[in-house]
Amino acid sequence: MEPVPPLDADECRRRFTAARVATLATTNADGGADLVPVTYALVGDVILTAVDHKPKSTRRLRRLDNIARQPAVALLADHYTDYDWAALWWVRAHGTATVSDEVPGSLLDALVAKYAPYADAPPAGPFIVVPVDRWSGWAATAARS
Amino acid sequence: MEPVPPLDADECRRRFTAARVATLATTNADGGADLVPVTYALVGDVILTAVDHKPKSTRRLRRLDNIARQPAVALLADHYTDYDWAALWWVRAHGTATVSDEVPGSLLDALVAKYAPYADAPPAGPFIVVPVDRWSGWAATAARS
Repeated sequence: MEPVPPLDADECRRRFTAARVATLATTNADGGADLVPVTYALVGDVILTAVDHKPKSTRRLRRLDNIARQPAVALLADHYTDYDWAALWWVRAHGTATVSDEVPGSLLDALVAKYAPYADAPPAGPFIVVPVDRWSGWAATAARS
Repeated sequence: MEPVPPLDADECRRRFTAARVATLATTNADGGADLVPVTYALVGDVILTAVDHKPKSTRRLRRLDNIARQPAVALLADHYTDYDWAALWWVRAHGTATVSDEVPGSLLDALVAKYAPYADAPPAGPFIVVPVDRWSGWAATAARS
């Protein structure tokens, strides 16, 4: 198998924008990783994800505690299919997260616009905001230009 | 939205076995998480994943360096669909990884049997073996029994 070049940052942004779900990794108190799938929007180089409508008692989620302790997070979006391993790809974003109860309207609008269920019930927060400081990515087949 | 009970360990194993791709999280030297999608097999409570056929020079992958430093890893498999958020679910496994150039035949057989491309080109390793010591999982709709 021939090596393929890594995806450049623009191609990473393009694929990450189009993907529908990503895995968010935060670091727990033991130094290990906690993982959870998230919906998200990318605006410029800022990722927004929200805690969905959970009962109040569980809204204090471990991912929020983790970020308070260690704000370095990573998100991964990938494409997998059994039928064509030449189509596999993944994109990873690293950044420093903040947790907020309010976010700029442009960010929230992008998130609501991306997912139909949010049109009726926009996420109320808290929100996790991640300015991306490093993109990396790989595709089994070099991107067509 | 009504709270749903978390998935029990048996249901986690069942869904994780059936899933086709997972995200592997390892911890890098800075204490942050590195993420990569992996193919894998689950046999009993042991996960096997392999480094695919990469050129020799890149076979020393960051995930292996990370595990040598911090063997606590996590894997996440999830189901996402835009069309039915009631069908969403995820399963997460935590365990302590070891890296090995050889693994028991029963483990490797399970991995090769799961993915058609491995029939012609079984992974040569190195392998990452993760005995799971904690399952957790969530489904938007309670599992049908």
